[in-house]
Amino acid sequence: MPKTTYVNGRYLPHGSAAVHIEDRGFQFADGVYEVICVYDRILVDLNLHLDRLDRSLRELEIPLSKSRRTLKIILKEIVWRNRIVNGSVYLQITRGSAVREFAYANDLTPSLIIYARKSARLNFESINIGHKIISKPDIRWKRSDIKSISLLPAVLAKQAAVNVGADESWFVNEEGFVTEGTSSNAWIVTARDELITRPLDNLILPGITRHRILALAKKQDFEFIERPFLIKEALESKEAFCTSSTSPIKPIIEIDNHEIGDGRVGPVTRLLIEHYLHYMDNLNEK
Amino acid sequence: MPKTTYVNGRYLPHGSAAVHIEDRGFQFADGVYEVICVYDRILVDLNLHLDRLDRSLRELEIPLSKSRRTLKIILKEIVWRNRIVNGSVYLQITRGSAVREFAYANDLTPSLIIYARKSARLNFESINIGHKIISKPDIRWKRSDIKSISLLPAVLAKQAAVNVGADESWFVNEEGFVTEGTSSNAWIVTARDELITRPLDNLILPGITRHRILALAKKQDFEFIERPFLIKEALESKEAFCTSSTSPIKPIIEIDNHEIGDGRVGPVTRLLIEHYLHYMDNLNEK
Repeated sequence: MPKTTYVNGRYLPHGSAAVHIEDRGFQFADGVYEVICVYDRILVDLNLHLDRLDRSLRELEIPLSKSRRTLKIILKEIVWRNRIVNGSVYLQITRGSAVREFAYANDLTPSLIIYARKSARLNFESINIGHKIISKPDIRWKRSDIKSISLLPAVLAKQAAVNVGADESWFVNEEGFVTEGTSSNAWIVTARDELITRPLDNLILPGITRHRILALAKKQDFEFIERPFLIKEALESKEAFCTSSTSPIKPIIEIDNHEIGDGRVGPVTRLLIEHYLHYMDNLNEK
Repeated sequence: MPKTTYVNGRYLPHGSAAVHIEDRGFQFADGVYEVICVYDRILVDLNLHLDRLDRSLRELEIPLSKSRRTLKIILKEIVWRNRIVNGSVYLQITRGSAVREFAYANDLTPSLIIYARKSARLNFESINIGHKIISKPDIRWKRSDIKSISLLPAVLAKQAAVNVGADESWFVNEEGFVTEGTSSNAWIVTARDELITRPLDNLILPGITRHRILALAKKQDFEFIERPFLIKEALESKEAFCTSSTSPIKPIIEIDNHEIGDGRVGPVTRLLIEHYLHYMDNLNEK
């Protein structure tokens, strides 16, 4: 369990970390969040996470008065106080507490919560594991590009996967295109060894790891295309994987009970894992 | 401000009513709610609200262990302790607190929050007021029939209305049909004096007041049809109104800057207000 958690200006024992029941995060899902991987004490791609956080806040018009410098100080303090060497930091900002009304006043003080958890250090063996996923209709709202806490549809789709022994669900829209996973971006490798992921739009989260993998693919001369792909193409793909901040690359060996490739983690995925770990091993925090 | 609020088995001063930051209601919008009107100390249509609550919980597989009898005792205790003669009671149930993971364990203890607020007694004059609304694209998830706290899209649409001096937004789907308001069901009266509201489906909340108005319309021999209607029809309608538990009938005199009817509350709406108030004046709580 985390030791110390930051809630609205105070460092509290985690068990006492609470918000009022009229916090708009609790009553309206009126808030945003970030999860940042901690690798060898470094907050991975911290500036990209804070850039995305700024964008989410802007889209919802939540006026956070804390500077980026202050946020970084608190994030690092939480990592330090909880003795996190490897793990993750969770940050949530809501519009604040107010008498319950759908519309909001502009002078609310946003709530800020930051805490951290330890986890095992990422390495090739812990990442190089084949996972099963299923597909589910994408019934979410049309602004999944905002990293909001309005996550109920993702919860239900993830649980549906777990209920059948799978690890993740990929959302498929009405035209049959894969949008993304419940908490990850979606990738396939075609028969021609092209790496494919959906371009950014209002239906998917602009994943930080997605961005990083694209940058590595470019640098390492992988064939890659950002284009929408059908669930049918995914079922026929040579390789498939998910990306997210805490599970940077999650290899997929089965989709909807169809074996992908030869049912083992494929060579393109394995090479990307190596490049990503190399990237993380050479990080210098800014 | 409410005096006493019920949180997970305890009656607390409202200012101390808090939930843990890892309550799934705060992190995932993983919960449901009800708002029940209190009229002359009676909880209006309480059993219908508790029926709908049961359905919402079932749809999300949240296993509340409290009986209906227990819920009623707490609801009435809160009304009594807060000296509510006229007002509303708010009840929220979330899946409970747990280490943050999208998927959930089946043995979590749901959180239960109940509190109440006073408001002015409803009467003909306070209801018989013309309101302005606007239309907004319905970008919400496809399960608005579940009364979940995943309300961010509704918050943004309500705020968009308030920003232009309107009271409510009506959601319009891709085919041009009105689904419902951000926190109300939508009704029009056609040139032929037919009362129209959308039939229940996965895109709208099964409103308790909607149900009650339909029953009154039937009993009083109004012409009424449950069918989808276009925003275009609404703009050309003779009368329009919203229904919800706390604002049972909200007359509309302007949609997207188009005057509805002659810009005053119409005769069908006024008659329905009278019938609804008569219904409330003759309630006997069960």
